Amino acid sequence: MIAVQLQDGRVSVENARRPARRKGYALIGLRLGGICNTDLELKRGYYGFRGRPGHEFVGEVVSADDRNWVGKRVVGEINLACGMCEWCGRGLGRHCPARTVLGIVKHPGAFAEYLTLPESNLLEVPGSVTDEHAVFTEPVAAACEILEQVRFPSGQPVAVLGDGKLGLLIAQVLQAHSPTILYGRHRQKMAVAQAVGVEARLVGKRRPRREFDYVVDATGSREGFSAAMQMVRPRGTLILKSTVHGTVGIDTAPLIVDEITIVGSRCGRFKPALKLIKQGKLNLDPMIAARFRLAEAPKAFARAEERGTLKVLLDPGG
Amino acid sequence: MIAVQLQDGRVSVENARRPARRKGYALIGLRLGGICNTDLELKRGYYGFRGRPGHEFVGEVVSADDRNWVGKRVVGEINLACGMCEWCGRGLGRHCPARTVLGIVKHPGAFAEYLTLPESNLLEVPGSVTDEHAVFTEPVAAACEILEQVRFPSGQPVAVLGDGKLGLLIAQVLQAHSPTILYGRHRQKMAVAQAVGVEARLVGKRRPRREFDYVVDATGSREGFSAAMQMVRPRGTLILKSTVHGTVGIDTAPLIVDEITIVGSRCGRFKPALKLIKQGKLNLDPMIAARFRLAEAPKAFARAEERGTLKVLLDPGG
Repeated sequence: MIAVQLQDGRVSVENARRPARRKGYALIGLRLGGICNTDLELKRGYYGFRGRPGHEFVGEVVSADDRNWVGKRVVGEINLACGMCEWCGRGLGRHCPARTVLGIVKHPGAFAEYLTLPESNLLEVPGSVTDEHAVFTEPVAAACEILEQVRFPSGQPVAVLGDGKLGLLIAQVLQAHSPTILYGRHRQKMAVAQAVGVEARLVGKRRPRREFDYVVDATGSREGFSAAMQMVRPRGTLILKSTVHGTVGIDTAPLIVDEITIVGSRCGRFKPALKLIKQGKLNLDPMIAARFRLAEAPKAFARAEERGTLKVLLDPGG
Repeated sequence: MIAVQLQDGRVSVENARRPARRKGYALIGLRLGGICNTDLELKRGYYGFRGRPGHEFVGEVVSADDRNWVGKRVVGEINLACGMCEWCGRGLGRHCPARTVLGIVKHPGAFAEYLTLPESNLLEVPGSVTDEHAVFTEPVAAACEILEQVRFPSGQPVAVLGDGKLGLLIAQVLQAHSPTILYGRHRQKMAVAQAVGVEARLVGKRRPRREFDYVVDATGSREGFSAAMQMVRPRGTLILKSTVHGTVGIDTAPLIVDEITIVGSRCGRFKPALKLIKQGKLNLDPMIAARFRLAEAPKAFARAEERGTLKVLLDPGG
């Protein structure tokens, strides 16, 4: 089968063996994959990665222990957990210390004609949800995670800083819960979120200061983090959604004097994400910037790396 | 009257006019004051401070609009709030944007024979509580604030890092709620907290890693902050209780991957603090390192600045 390979900063396509299906696992044929910023970072060698990337996907089950899965269109949670530890017992397999992670940590990714995942990780995609929408389940789940960690009152205004892929999804997901204001630099991109009711504000010289009880930083930049810190009111919460490489300098004085809370936030559960997508509450079509065949993965990655590109999809057929 | 003055890094004692009592305020005769690390920082010129310091005190009301206060022994909340804004309405006068702060921000401090405070800031000290204990109400309230901000289940083990004045009080306050483990470098100091049941562990080469759901950093140092971060389990909470000067470098990757929450924490309400003190749950006597007359304030500050010194008290009589 065709599979994407990342090594030493290069993207290549190789012929690989179809992965062996272990007990309790499903063999899944890829229908569509999505390139995430994490994939671009893996390409650059962060986390010492080399291997097969891909964790945003929708596929079709080819074989499984439970034959009911066969032929089903599925998405799958990306953390492969032990199922036995304290974390797994608390429904937090995504923090299982023994976990591997699809296309990120020690489990071959979805950018191949076939992948495997534990059956317990799978969710069936409702018939009304297209592949092009279902492929967003993973990043939408990451956005939904915020609502699981920080239970802010519905109706409370929230600010999202950053109009990249994740920022646009976060703003849309939060808008389904509370009036959301997106701060970004690109009118066109922000229009995607505006379509579902998000208020868009261009980041200008005058930054809002101490204006919001809840601020989400989805910029992935040092400057974004500082700006987000300044936007939070006393006793407010700053949700940190995208990693900044290297260390970020934090002035602890305002953090303590204003009793700010900073919440790191990563992956989320797929169920609420798929529900939001099914309800048609998100404007996903304009988030797709380009679609490439799996065999064109090097081109697809190059396109995804162009500044300001939204979602680039990988199609095994095409 | 005699009053302490900080200016350009120097401590002096001056003859000053007794402060005028405004409407709604009480004039209070000092009985005992306590020197806090913040006072030492004000001396060094942080926050551009010059003037009369002192925010830890117990005193006796000399005059007040409400004559019931006269003759009462009191402690007083240090934030002088407007009483009208959203914050004040929520009982969070300590975040009132118009606030002044006793001995810190635009309100002359308690290191003088007399001070003034709004009557609404005062709490009567129960007869069974000595001056030497009552003077700890403010820092004990700061420790209690943690329990107001972070509602962790009683019985959940908590780690406190740092065996300075504040760390010792925090460990004792938390121990009244949950089994608390104090990490420090000084057996003798930690013994103060051990007396009320706190488990003391010397910080050695082997740092605990990902061991606690709740960690309080009371070190005030960069190294302490990093160590505290490493002690928190995934989805855990790090409470930041003492300011580190300059910026602290934070690696956002573990913060996000492990979904850590960082909570800045400052002043607290006096009522629960005074209650804890009255109940005799805290071991305060050995926390007093020295006692000086107000006129000896320069010596008292010098002593408080010696490394490892616990609480230094200022006595207007003596």
